[in-house]
Amino acid sequence: QINSDRLWSTILETAQFGGTPKGGVRRLALSEEDRQVRDWFRAACEAAGLAVSIDQLGNMFALRPGKDAGKAPLGIGSHLDTQPTGGKFDGILGTLAALEVVRTLNDAGIETEAPLCVINWTNEEGSRFAPAMMGSAGHVADLPLAEILARTDAEGVSVGEALDAIGYRGEAPLGAQKLGGFLELHIEQGPILEAENLTIGVVEHGQGIIWYDGRITGFESHAGSTPMHLRKDALATLSEIVLAVETLAVELGPNAVGTVADIAIARQSRNVIPGEITFAAEFRTPDAGILAALDKGLQAAVARIAERRKVSVALDTIWRKEPTHFDPAITGAVAQAAQKLGLSHRPMVSGAGHDSFHLATIVPTGMIFVPCKDGVSHNELESATQADCAAGANVLLHAVLALAGD
Amino acid sequence: QINSDRLWSTILETAQFGGTPKGGVRRLALSEEDRQVRDWFRAACEAAGLAVSIDQLGNMFALRPGKDAGKAPLGIGSHLDTQPTGGKFDGILGTLAALEVVRTLNDAGIETEAPLCVINWTNEEGSRFAPAMMGSAGHVADLPLAEILARTDAEGVSVGEALDAIGYRGEAPLGAQKLGGFLELHIEQGPILEAENLTIGVVEHGQGIIWYDGRITGFESHAGSTPMHLRKDALATLSEIVLAVETLAVELGPNAVGTVADIAIARQSRNVIPGEITFAAEFRTPDAGILAALDKGLQAAVARIAERRKVSVALDTIWRKEPTHFDPAITGAVAQAAQKLGLSHRPMVSGAGHDSFHLATIVPTGMIFVPCKDGVSHNELESATQADCAAGANVLLHAVLALAGD
Ligand SMILES: NC(=O)NCCC(=O)O
Ligand SMILES: NC(=O)NCCC(=O)O
Repeated sequence: QINSDRLWSTILETAQFGGTPKGGVRRLALSEEDRQVRDWFRAACEAAGLAVSIDQLGNMFALRPGKDAGKAPLGIGSHLDTQPTGGKFDGILGTLAALEVVRTLNDAGIETEAPLCVINWTNEEGSRFAPAMMGSAGHVADLPLAEILARTDAEGVSVGEALDAIGYRGEAPLGAQKLGGFLELHIEQGPILEAENLTIGVVEHGQGIIWYDGRITGFESHAGSTPMHLRKDALATLSEIVLAVETLAVELGPNAVGTVADIAIARQSRNVIPGEITFAAEFRTPDAGILAALDKGLQAAVARIAERRKVSVALDTIWRKEPTHFDPAITGAVAQAAQKLGLSHRPMVSGAGHDSFHLATIVPTGMIFVPCKDGVSHNELESATQADCAAGANVLLHAVLALAGD
Repeated sequence: QINSDRLWSTILETAQFGGTPKGGVRRLALSEEDRQVRDWFRAACEAAGLAVSIDQLGNMFALRPGKDAGKAPLGIGSHLDTQPTGGKFDGILGTLAALEVVRTLNDAGIETEAPLCVINWTNEEGSRFAPAMMGSAGHVADLPLAEILARTDAEGVSVGEALDAIGYRGEAPLGAQKLGGFLELHIEQGPILEAENLTIGVVEHGQGIIWYDGRITGFESHAGSTPMHLRKDALATLSEIVLAVETLAVELGPNAVGTVADIAIARQSRNVIPGEITFAAEFRTPDAGILAALDKGLQAAVARIAERRKVSVALDTIWRKEPTHFDPAITGAVAQAAQKLGLSHRPMVSGAGHDSFHLATIVPTGMIFVPCKDGVSHNELESATQADCAAGANVLLHAVLALAGD
């Protein structure tokens, strides 16, 4: 059994790096707050006897040797960055629970067969720099290093510059840290476990994801003197696109979601018809066929709307990740660990994206979910109980023992 | 005849205060650029022998005595502030043409019966501080002084603070400068004169205007893991409101317009469902009954949308101006001046709001329009020809001679 109080107090301790008055955390990827939590995490790993290395994207790998040095380490962890107004569990629970597993093994004097590697992936959230799950994308070579380093935030700062600014552009080549598998604990970020009064989600699938960047170019003119039929209103155009995204997700669902967010109207003024708008849009579904249909449906809707309104709309697909299917050996070990610990559980699909989606493309991978209050995440109100966090960490511990060998 | 080249060169000269690379002007009300053009204008008026006084809202009155000191002066002028990305004619033409009329009378040694008063009204645009036509609203006591001084911009700076910052909070009590009438030359800001190949618009009516400030409160949550039916999406809500505004204006028109602009999404991130949005909306129509119907229609639509989506929407009416009907004696003088000068003309409704709308509530008032390219205004591309500007200024001159008496 892991030490529930120690795990809980590390969660509260790290929540101070970027902590907000409402009890949330603002710790954007590669920000000063991210540096602070990284420094804390490195020191904590070293204090637990782990050897920390950092790769070219700032991914942090903390290695614990096993009895069999020839075996590839089992990776455990998640991420420590947050949304602009995020919570203190999303990503953090999985990273600190991995550390807690190591501390527990240390306390019990247990050496696993395979080495263990506690990991903090860079920029999982995708909020400051798109796309999400960026560090793990680099690790599995889903995106080339140079392209990732060149991605910029809203202020024009590149990933490479941000890494340098906080001193976390490491020496280790991307992917150099070989892994034999990967296991990630995370809050569900959805309402199902809580609604069904269950403690553990055994994640078997992850949704496919498409992210778009859009730009609408209409024409700015006077809100009072421009007749309705002569307008090229970028906001009215956006409004139709927002509702098309929503309708497509509802109609092609039930297991699909679609969202438009992150709007910027250029040169806006209350009595000027909006002429230029940028926006972000996305679809997610566990079904590859539905993902393709959503994409096709949106492209067609956008073309129709743009033609009728005589505006131009550029819709760039900046990221596409097909649905993920986790490894049966790993999900089996998770289910058995829950069973053994007497914890209620069920198979699940992950609604959110996770670094595990990328890891699953190169090594056997799985995830463990625990409930969060009202299913709320990406919100400062995000909340999970100490008991559920401890239960998840215990499932992680026992799955690790089964997979890495004790 | 006014001096066309002198008028044109003053327009180009003042366009340098806040001039933009695209040939437009950014001179927000009570900004540093506004101070610069005000200083220029005061000096130019004084050089033309006018006595300049400034009231408690920074409205500038430049007085030219008449033969009959007992007569109330005829006001002529407009405004020198612009949109964030505005043009170099909107308001400016009317103010500088009024100065040009005085210069022409000086050159010709003509003294009118009634005094003349060249006026620059404060914050006509309403972009930095709402509502528009603020200085003239104060002059006619449509809004109380204290309330106007307390209005703030997006940075929280109040009108009073901004007046002090540029040194234009004057001593003259609001409304102390009595006027016998008011006449304003302006670009049309719409497409009609150009389309009909006419030079002069004799403005007989002004549209009624309602301005709203709106706030939508939904709930922020994860874009990937929140099912569609559990969302309280503020942007989808806004989208329905935008389309309702558009549909109402089209259906209750043909002479109505409706616009939503000036959006801010709180705490936005591309994978967070927007939870809180503020926006500005407006309707305009020359018909008081239609204005009331638009207002009622929007209130009903907003209530319906908010209820169905289970979000809350606050819609505050921050300004309402009933339709304006200009004085037949003034519009008659304008039409006669155009006739006498051999300029083609037609009666018109003003689509944009103007300080003249407020003046019309206290003294006989009228307006003269000249064409602008493609009807475009509130855009850096706003353009008018030297010949049309001069034609408008000549109509202003001859209407002034008829109304003030020579
Ligand atoms: N787990 C999580 O919140 N990931 C952020 C990336 C995304 O799913 O949009
Ligand atoms: N004339 C003009 O553009 N006025 C600005 C105020 C408005 O009509 O919105």
